[in-house]
Amino acid sequence: MKPLSDKSINPDLPKQYRNLRSVEAYIEGILAGDRIILSQAITLIESTRPEHRILAQDIVEACLARRTSSIRIGITGSPGVGKSTFIEAFGTHLIEKGHRLAVLAIDPTSQISKGSILGDKTRMAKLASNENAFIRPSAAGDSLGGVAHKTREAILLCEAAGFDTIIVETVGVGQSETAVHSMVDCFLLLLLPGAGDELQGIKRGIVEMADILAVNKADGERLALAKRTQQEYRNALHLFPIKASGWIPSVLTCSASNNEGIAEIWQMIKDFQKFTLENGYFEHNRQEQSRHWLHETILILLRAQFYSDKSVKAHLKDIEKQVLEGKLSSSKGARELLDLFLRQ
Amino acid sequence: MKPLSDKSINPDLPKQYRNLRSVEAYIEGILAGDRIILSQAITLIESTRPEHRILAQDIVEACLARRTSSIRIGITGSPGVGKSTFIEAFGTHLIEKGHRLAVLAIDPTSQISKGSILGDKTRMAKLASNENAFIRPSAAGDSLGGVAHKTREAILLCEAAGFDTIIVETVGVGQSETAVHSMVDCFLLLLLPGAGDELQGIKRGIVEMADILAVNKADGERLALAKRTQQEYRNALHLFPIKASGWIPSVLTCSASNNEGIAEIWQMIKDFQKFTLENGYFEHNRQEQSRHWLHETILILLRAQFYSDKSVKAHLKDIEKQVLEGKLSSSKGARELLDLFLRQ
Repeated sequence: MKPLSDKSINPDLPKQYRNLRSVEAYIEGILAGDRIILSQAITLIESTRPEHRILAQDIVEACLARRTSSIRIGITGSPGVGKSTFIEAFGTHLIEKGHRLAVLAIDPTSQISKGSILGDKTRMAKLASNENAFIRPSAAGDSLGGVAHKTREAILLCEAAGFDTIIVETVGVGQSETAVHSMVDCFLLLLLPGAGDELQGIKRGIVEMADILAVNKADGERLALAKRTQQEYRNALHLFPIKASGWIPSVLTCSASNNEGIAEIWQMIKDFQKFTLENGYFEHNRQEQSRHWLHETILILLRAQFYSDKSVKAHLKDIEKQVLEGKLSSSKGARELLDLFLRQ
Repeated sequence: MKPLSDKSINPDLPKQYRNLRSVEAYIEGILAGDRIILSQAITLIESTRPEHRILAQDIVEACLARRTSSIRIGITGSPGVGKSTFIEAFGTHLIEKGHRLAVLAIDPTSQISKGSILGDKTRMAKLASNENAFIRPSAAGDSLGGVAHKTREAILLCEAAGFDTIIVETVGVGQSETAVHSMVDCFLLLLLPGAGDELQGIKRGIVEMADILAVNKADGERLALAKRTQQEYRNALHLFPIKASGWIPSVLTCSASNNEGIAEIWQMIKDFQKFTLENGYFEHNRQEQSRHWLHETILILLRAQFYSDKSVKAHLKDIEKQVLEGKLSSSKGARELLDLFLRQ
């Protein structure tokens, strides 16, 4: 770690927060691409302490001003599909091509398991040790919306730190895919050979979001099955409505453990980026995502404001009690609390 | 349809709403078990017009006062598992046993497809024509939370109308299961023979919510496979944490089209109800659900209040524009709008 600049100690803060750097020190460190300071700044974003939040907001604002060109890639797939192995191979390939890669994660189950995605330090060990890669486990939080909001701000910081390729990884459980989809440019779905039956079922919503599909583990005796699965998905994709981007999703095969098909997937992502940059969808989509996040953030702030309101706090327990006893409907109880909040 | 009472025309309302009944007429009709008036009242719950919402709230409040004993059963399963056929067979069995059955649905995809669940009139034709059954398609709405809220109020109305067994059906796509789980006493997951592989995958979250699992289509040449699937799930369930209810989920088999195993599933649901009534979980769970819905409703109302605020309306477009152009972060934009809202 390089020596801290003079700005790194903040004398204006009360004693207990002296270990925090000043806003300028964080921004300087991030813009210099310092992975440790970047990591500390993301910790501030994830913090629930008000003084951390204020610092974090100033940092995000400063990073936003440094607009960079980047590609944000969402990666999902059922457990067992080999996401870690894929990201290790894919990330290594990108770094060899001269890119700087940040890997973030959204894992709603981390509320319970305290971070199953990327939480395990042994995952992506090779990639993690490379100075052109930055790997960060999923934030924990009391709601998917909150976790996703933090991840989105972490993306902005990583981009300001010079990471031009951002991967946001998630598990294949529905809700988190929607959150990831709302913050990436390109969505990659990893599939298992022979899991084509799922097409008829619960994964349909995720398949519809995907820009690129890749059947992983297409090696050895699974190769033929992988090819058949590829064809099944190709056929099935014809049944889906045309995407807003105008892009026709492709289905590829790869073997992350054998390092096969990785370059082709990266080429396809670049083709996707070129296609959407040219037809204007890339920028349009980023703008729509910003709009979406503005409104998500409003909701998060509104809720925080409501529950910290004195008058609401004073009556919440009693109204809850009446609702629990069936003396008051949820609707009417909520309306009474809202009236108290708005009367202030 | 029986003749309308004198209270059915509401002279206090402006002319264009004269076709609405008075609150008393709706309540009287519901308490008399009139399926047409019940249906009209649910339409008021689903309406976005303020005058409908006011009427609806009074109706819900009155129905809440009439506490009845009922069982609320959530049913889910991937498309193709035979949910309609199952509900038809199951519902017919219940009615033969002297119960009155309401079937509601939560389908988040109905925002796009305008109601795929229960939307098709030909589904459950036999059940629908029985006067002891009430079948209602999923409400449409701009958010799952909104749709679920409406369904929850519809449950209260159905119970006040004397339906002692409420089924809430949903599709197997994750988010909607969580919503259904938050409003039922007992959660039934229907499975397909041979789909045991999914256990390792994306359905895990749903399996964890289930109190009873049933492998449907256990007939003919699929019987052996169904039995194997049953055993696989039985083995796998040992790996899950013990449920808060203390109930150990069972895995049954059935063939809805052959009317086999249906009585056994109903018996298991009754066993579950007895077990949770005795250990106090049944009431505890309903109270926790009421608490959950109080807070969900607060959020819905807060949002509505925010976006209808004059000052917010006056500045929203401009702030959105700055966020879209990358001149302002979502966080700061949201904070500025919130300050405008709270200054009122």
